[in-house]
Amino acid sequence: MKQHLILETAHLLLAHHLSENDVVIDATVGNGHDTLFLSPKVSHVYAFDIQKQALDHTQKLIESHQLSNVTLIMDSHEHFAKYVTAFKAAIFNLGYLPGGDKDITTTSETTIKTVQSMLEHLPVGGFIQIVVYTGHEQGKIESDHLKDYLRTLCIEQFKVMKIELPYQDNQPPYILIIHKKKDGS
Amino acid sequence: MKQHLILETAHLLLAHHLSENDVVIDATVGNGHDTLFLSPKVSHVYAFDIQKQALDHTQKLIESHQLSNVTLIMDSHEHFAKYVTAFKAAIFNLGYLPGGDKDITTTSETTIKTVQSMLEHLPVGGFIQIVVYTGHEQGKIESDHLKDYLRTLCIEQFKVMKIELPYQDNQPPYILIIHKKKDGS
Repeated sequence: MKQHLILETAHLLLAHHLSENDVVIDATVGNGHDTLFLSPKVSHVYAFDIQKQALDHTQKLIESHQLSNVTLIMDSHEHFAKYVTAFKAAIFNLGYLPGGDKDITTTSETTIKTVQSMLEHLPVGGFIQIVVYTGHEQGKIESDHLKDYLRTLCIEQFKVMKIELPYQDNQPPYILIIHKKKDGS
Repeated sequence: MKQHLILETAHLLLAHHLSENDVVIDATVGNGHDTLFLSPKVSHVYAFDIQKQALDHTQKLIESHQLSNVTLIMDSHEHFAKYVTAFKAAIFNLGYLPGGDKDITTTSETTIKTVQSMLEHLPVGGFIQIVVYTGHEQGKIESDHLKDYLRTLCIEQFKVMKIELPYQDNQPPYILIIHKKKDGS
């Protein structure tokens, strides 16, 4: 366990379920860590963030690692379909930018709206992975809203997997992965 | 998703956390599926079952796949220390033998006793993976007892990860992985 067990597992599952011909959306670039992880494993990464600070930092990472398959987009992920409509997977890290302004967080309303729309665009076999942080107030609310929303998904069409550390007392993040099994009728 | 998502994830995590010098215990051989999966990935598998039917079936698999690093043991996993005391990991599939006598199941008392003893033997970095089936009455009881037991573990010493499909209505199995972070004091 070189890094946090939950984040290590999130990356392990991404690497397992993605391959070199896949297009992926990083819906919340943040410190660029996930974009950097995804880039060598897929054909293209569309990376969204609303904060210039996050994109500038990630632009430097892209240059220093000489990555040529990343498109950085300064816009909210809710407008993803303006930029990309065919993709195998999307990933979200909820909450605020590490080291940034803690008042600028993702909100459950926008997150759920985007997830819902992405699930419609996903091909069968595609998936959305969400890392949920419940250590701050807004995170707890977002987690509860997300849970309520996921309960409404058609279980014939989607399989939701949850990965958590249930007995830790420091509120570690948990992972949700929504796999699309079938198209809607 | 070629097979059940939970079982696929269980194998993915095993492959990730194990390497060719590791010794592993398959505490519940059953149909031999896990032993067969583990054998090429590790140095040795000690495989326990109390049912001759399970071991005979697995012996045939071992021969047909020409595996030379598996020791089949017809004994309860609670006596594991009679056969092996140095191992990186142990895996359990709770419940009854698929296709066998449904009255012969693992019981929470024996399972917890064995898990507790194995956790003491595990090196730092070692782990126990348990696939829990709650689709039958004894499985639900076992699952509840296991939960109560895991809550008592020292969180400085052990990290427990749970992987489940929370919104399915057909009671799919779930995975527990207990990672040893530190030795006891």
